[in-house]
Amino acid sequence: MTATPASMAGDTAADDVTTSEGPTHPLTGYTLDEAEGPLSSEELRVMDAWWRAANFLSVGQIYLMDNPLVHEPLALEHVKPRLLGHWGTTPGLNLVYVHANRMITERELDAVYVMGPGHGGPGPNACAWLEGSYTELFPAITQDERGMAAFFRQFSFPGGVPSHCAPQTPGSFHEGGELGYSLVHAYGAALDDPGLTVFCVVGDGEAETGPLAASWHINKLINPARDGAVLPIIALNGYKIANPTLLARIPEAELAELMRGYGYDPHFVTAETSTNPAQAHQGLATVMDECLDKIAAIQERAREHGDLSRPAWPMIVLRTPKGWTGPTVVDGQQVEGTYRSHQVPLAATRTDDEHRGALEQWLRSYRPQELFDDAGRPVPELLALPPEGARRMSANPVANTQRLLHLDLPDFRQHAVEVAARGTSSHEATRVLGGWLRDVARANDGSFLLFGPDEVASNRLHDVLDVGGRSWVAQTLEGDDRLSPQGRSIEILSEHVCQGLLEGYLLTGRHGVFTCYEAFIHIVDSMFNQHAKWLEASAAVPWRGSVPSLNYLLSSHVWRQDHNGSTHQDPGFLDVVMNKKPGVVRVYLPPDTNTLLSVYDHCLRSRNYVNVVVAGKQPQLDYLPMDEAIRHCTRGIGIWDWAGTETPGSEPDVVLACAGEIPTLEALAAADLLRQVQGLRVRFVNVVDLMRLQPESEHPHGLSDREFDALFTTDKPVVFAFHGYPWLIHRLAYRRTNHHNMHVRGYKENGTTTTPFDMVMLNDVDRYHLAIDVLDRVPGLAAREAVLRQRLGDTRLCARQWTREHGEDMPEVADWVWPHG
Amino acid sequence: MTATPASMAGDTAADDVTTSEGPTHPLTGYTLDEAEGPLSSEELRVMDAWWRAANFLSVGQIYLMDNPLVHEPLALEHVKPRLLGHWGTTPGLNLVYVHANRMITERELDAVYVMGPGHGGPGPNACAWLEGSYTELFPAITQDERGMAAFFRQFSFPGGVPSHCAPQTPGSFHEGGELGYSLVHAYGAALDDPGLTVFCVVGDGEAETGPLAASWHINKLINPARDGAVLPIIALNGYKIANPTLLARIPEAELAELMRGYGYDPHFVTAETSTNPAQAHQGLATVMDECLDKIAAIQERAREHGDLSRPAWPMIVLRTPKGWTGPTVVDGQQVEGTYRSHQVPLAATRTDDEHRGALEQWLRSYRPQELFDDAGRPVPELLALPPEGARRMSANPVANTQRLLHLDLPDFRQHAVEVAARGTSSHEATRVLGGWLRDVARANDGSFLLFGPDEVASNRLHDVLDVGGRSWVAQTLEGDDRLSPQGRSIEILSEHVCQGLLEGYLLTGRHGVFTCYEAFIHIVDSMFNQHAKWLEASAAVPWRGSVPSLNYLLSSHVWRQDHNGSTHQDPGFLDVVMNKKPGVVRVYLPPDTNTLLSVYDHCLRSRNYVNVVVAGKQPQLDYLPMDEAIRHCTRGIGIWDWAGTETPGSEPDVVLACAGEIPTLEALAAADLLRQVQGLRVRFVNVVDLMRLQPESEHPHGLSDREFDALFTTDKPVVFAFHGYPWLIHRLAYRRTNHHNMHVRGYKENGTTTTPFDMVMLNDVDRYHLAIDVLDRVPGLAAREAVLRQRLGDTRLCARQWTREHGEDMPEVADWVWPHG
Repeated sequence: MTATPASMAGDTAADDVTTSEGPTHPLTGYTLDEAEGPLSSEELRVMDAWWRAANFLSVGQIYLMDNPLVHEPLALEHVKPRLLGHWGTTPGLNLVYVHANRMITERELDAVYVMGPGHGGPGPNACAWLEGSYTELFPAITQDERGMAAFFRQFSFPGGVPSHCAPQTPGSFHEGGELGYSLVHAYGAALDDPGLTVFCVVGDGEAETGPLAASWHINKLINPARDGAVLPIIALNGYKIANPTLLARIPEAELAELMRGYGYDPHFVTAETSTNPAQAHQGLATVMDECLDKIAAIQERAREHGDLSRPAWPMIVLRTPKGWTGPTVVDGQQVEGTYRSHQVPLAATRTDDEHRGALEQWLRSYRPQELFDDAGRPVPELLALPPEGARRMSANPVANTQRLLHLDLPDFRQHAVEVAARGTSSHEATRVLGGWLRDVARANDGSFLLFGPDEVASNRLHDVLDVGGRSWVAQTLEGDDRLSPQGRSIEILSEHVCQGLLEGYLLTGRHGVFTCYEAFIHIVDSMFNQHAKWLEASAAVPWRGSVPSLNYLLSSHVWRQDHNGSTHQDPGFLDVVMNKKPGVVRVYLPPDTNTLLSVYDHCLRSRNYVNVVVAGKQPQLDYLPMDEAIRHCTRGIGIWDWAGTETPGSEPDVVLACAGEIPTLEALAAADLLRQVQGLRVRFVNVVDLMRLQPESEHPHGLSDREFDALFTTDKPVVFAFHGYPWLIHRLAYRRTNHHNMHVRGYKENGTTTTPFDMVMLNDVDRYHLAIDVLDRVPGLAAREAVLRQRLGDTRLCARQWTREHGEDMPEVADWVWPHG
Repeated sequence: MTATPASMAGDTAADDVTTSEGPTHPLTGYTLDEAEGPLSSEELRVMDAWWRAANFLSVGQIYLMDNPLVHEPLALEHVKPRLLGHWGTTPGLNLVYVHANRMITERELDAVYVMGPGHGGPGPNACAWLEGSYTELFPAITQDERGMAAFFRQFSFPGGVPSHCAPQTPGSFHEGGELGYSLVHAYGAALDDPGLTVFCVVGDGEAETGPLAASWHINKLINPARDGAVLPIIALNGYKIANPTLLARIPEAELAELMRGYGYDPHFVTAETSTNPAQAHQGLATVMDECLDKIAAIQERAREHGDLSRPAWPMIVLRTPKGWTGPTVVDGQQVEGTYRSHQVPLAATRTDDEHRGALEQWLRSYRPQELFDDAGRPVPELLALPPEGARRMSANPVANTQRLLHLDLPDFRQHAVEVAARGTSSHEATRVLGGWLRDVARANDGSFLLFGPDEVASNRLHDVLDVGGRSWVAQTLEGDDRLSPQGRSIEILSEHVCQGLLEGYLLTGRHGVFTCYEAFIHIVDSMFNQHAKWLEASAAVPWRGSVPSLNYLLSSHVWRQDHNGSTHQDPGFLDVVMNKKPGVVRVYLPPDTNTLLSVYDHCLRSRNYVNVVVAGKQPQLDYLPMDEAIRHCTRGIGIWDWAGTETPGSEPDVVLACAGEIPTLEALAAADLLRQVQGLRVRFVNVVDLMRLQPESEHPHGLSDREFDALFTTDKPVVFAFHGYPWLIHRLAYRRTNHHNMHVRGYKENGTTTTPFDMVMLNDVDRYHLAIDVLDRVPGLAAREAVLRQRLGDTRLCARQWTREHGEDMPEVADWVWPHG
């Protein structure tokens, strides 16, 4: 094999380099040309040195277990057996970082850094180590040779840190595992933080994803006065794992049109493999200055002169060779500047001495002896380069989950609906909640936002629009409904964008709610997964603070999408949620308005969870006065003695259980029907907090077996009407004593275009079927109550027939109220 | 209330309209101006009449239960109690349809129509009814008054058809429930079908979604010679449910730049509420001519002159008022041209006589008496307008699942790996499969494609690249790896685009495979849901034919993402899949190379399913010779007697079960460890087809209880090592006799950056833990084998320690082979 490291090694032997001024510089292993630009010769020299140091530290993380400063010749035992992390994108990430640092220092910015490209973790780690924040946060990783060795070793090593940005990465609030969310997270952080600048590196691979492609349009929702600035930087290094990237293979003029079409003002910097880094530094410094000047001008216009019209925010397209400064040719194949440098350019460093030799040569090409002193500490001028304290992007409390804005919660009890007689009056639960959320938004102007994919009004939360309206800085027309740059409701028809903005907003210490149709929340399954995994991992990072919970409000739920048919019916998000670590997920199914208010107050107070609340938006009967609602929601599960027919002191004959708005209604109506059965002792159990059904060993909310048995008995039939897929209840309860007696009715993909009641009938969750179920399950009852059983069946058939004739539910069903109030 | 219907009703009373030539026309209720353009006066008159007829039929579907031709004054009982379907987008959809028809007729196109906007179902239904194909496919919906009444009534009515495009919609292969997939489905249909033209209406709402935003770039993968043409038409009506659309609120010049930046050649047609339809018709006809001319020129250049360079395909931005021709002002508020016309402009037609009167006026404004004869049949010139037979978009077999190309499957046995001794040799299963898939691609050039988000090579399927390489028509550079317009591998870093292209390709009768990292397939959970729901609903539509199954090949699976950490570890797609109707979903977990080959042959032969196959890409031991592999996969579950220690004729002491590549390896290694226990009778059960675990009442593949008990016993402990989240096995098996004895180990979100074996240890799926589990579960064994039990535990600790020191697994583990071969 042949390996030529450092394409720009040039012809100046390292030993000949002196400290004198000129094109050749002591801190670099390659010849640094003179180049025109805003950087003084000295600035250029130090910035390039810092970049080289970051690159050296990146290569070290990928490859080395020991001998970090290459004080000895590189031996087999110094090299990791598994080479992880991606070199290809890393030098570009480091380049942006050092140039962002110049901006921060010169302009006194409060800035954070979002890294989109995958597995480029060595870069931000290296920068944080150079800035000293790594050592501050992880005291064992000292800023010296020993710490460097530990720092290298832990990277993508068992028990160590991941190869992409993660909760362990100083300065990151963006997990780099799944691609596509850098820009939306950056914008989420910028919302309501006027002093913040977000340098957001977008990978040209991730730019192909849908969520990223949609995210460019967020600029139409950014208020230049009250929001911070995002500076997107496309890292156009041309390749993914094995393929070129689309954006790298269209003419630059076309890419410029695309960016202008997205509403940006693009700036291009290009470095080919033949470009001297000095030119790239000067080029990037030039456009960084231009962009930050333009941002300042936009903000001044908005803030000083009140011009909130949509500006063309600047952005940068930075074209650099993939794997720049790494081995150029390996085993006769071009590596630098191609997809072959995507992961590790030298793969056989444990088995091929020449590869290992090339690695050593590559490491030495950065001339570590001039970047670090004998103890392994960065030389003073490198230490002096970054901004200080919290201005370091790796130490910014905003990025490190160390800022948590207070949330002032108005009393939800003020919005309680009166329940004079149980199950007789009706309210639209989400509409009432919307009134309280309006008060929350008003009391927390600047730290609370509602997000929705054009469904805020549809889900009846439009009272929130009283607070500033809908966020909007694009064109407005007469007749628009409350569009305003001051809006506290962020609406865009992209579930991905809503979810991502909220994640970015929460992870930087603010609060919010995402409302969505239940079926379509599956669109963000994977984003939910990644956020939950962030919370799981973050809990083990001692310097990370609390994150406000991610609160879903799912309405237009499966049982109220009868008219839209099967495509709009899917309660399976609950199943996805339940797969994550019990410590971070909660699911609530409040059956009426007061329970929804109580549950939501709890959710907004909570930290570090994902709370999923499914609630109705159609008029629904009110069951619980507020004081009872609070008690019931606090317990999460309980017997509704007013609904049952138990005899105190004796066990019931059957348990009728329910969870969810419509199942609760149907179970109550079934309980009503069953009052016709003389002497039948029905226990009525309602579940609000689904996690209560799990064993206490599985979830912190789980009931003990004793508690569970006390509710569900150990041997009586249980008929359970459930909001979601029925198997979920079995999955939660399969270890319980009485599980074999549990008969669960839920959604089973029996959906079509129909009426609400016909839809519950199609899935056997309706009152008649539940009542018949009870008759069939209680020993001896079916025979004794054959007449009733048949009448229930007949009425059910009539109900179906009625919908086919009239297109709506029969009044007996639709107008039913609880008659025993 | 006040309601002014039909903004362009003008000042000509309907009764004054005559059949004479001139600006006022007999077939329209409004004054049709003269306007310059390619349409003759007669063409214009008939096309406008057809549009009006389609609009009338659309309003009828939304509102009427009876009295379809408004022969009587509209009474309460004629109006539906629930008003569903969205009027706002419908007139625009109908306008494009009639203009597409002109193109089809004039140019003899083979064309299909994709409708992106949501709930615009009345439009395509109306067009299909006018074209006669509705009656051909649904004989009860005759093309006369009675049929019209039934046609109106069934729309979004219990037991009827959905309000959006669905399997019941003639001419649609695109479900309109969840937004964002119109363009990707259109391109999927166009792949490999050079004669096809796809008119694809993109809603300006759905244009905000991520998948749609990413789909524009598919033009870089379209070969103008061997693929068909997609003509995207953005229906820019300006509003979503409650918000304006982003694309409607940027300057037209910016939108043009966006489209040019995406690589298109945009054409604009604008109709304001004040625009006379004649101008809109002429305008649309003009750009339709231009676009189809350009498409023809592109295709000629490619096909006649061999120029396969990327063209700028034409596209259209059609700006029309939302709810055009509907009520202008309702209850004093502007409706036409605003978000208020999004759903139904007159909502109170059952309770407000004025609303009902306005509806009648609106219906009459289309002058149905001049569009339909007394019997309700369209007048001859309307019947004569559409193209004939299969050229009608509503009757095109390509769209109606009536074309199914043959798939020629080469013998997979030719790729079998030899298994001289069980569990000793190793192969990368997906690499071997890739060899067979290459043969499949070669044998079916033009009807088989492989899709992947830049993971084809990573998942080791790169042999498929031998057949034409990777699809690519953008710029190429020296050193690129086999990019070609002829590629049979479609790679773009968007799981949404991969999934959507494959869906469009399959639903138009071709075959394919989607390969993806297991964790990231969650990105398309919702698209999978919608496709499965299409298959569920399609099965009940008698005129729909079979669809090739959607075949996933998930590799880089949860147990081999140890190095990438928690973000890359998620086996939960299986849980999502299992929620869909058993008739359409299948999950396979082949444990080695030969079983993967056998399973995949079965999948590619199947129809109407979604097949999920999870397989390894790393070297894995070979267990089954091909003949055994075929038998085992055909059974889907079975006892591996060579791995167990049963005594014939007596029950085992314990069942060691497994499903999945790594769990099978660990279970086998555990079985090996357990041979140290004198006299212990271990039964070894391997599961390939997960559906076999369900009761036969729940899934067609389900084992009978008798069969299940025969495998798993009725009372012996079962230790089950599972690929996914352990609860899935409980959910499938909770009704089985011996379920309470089943102890399942699977992934439980215990993930970090580590080694393969450490990762299975973290989740208790490792050989030592499984063996200890067995010792603990078999009565008396733990005490008798205390020494062994402790040794196993100690070795396990050593294995963990080893990874922390060496960064890889200890040789005893990593190099283990089955020693009893």
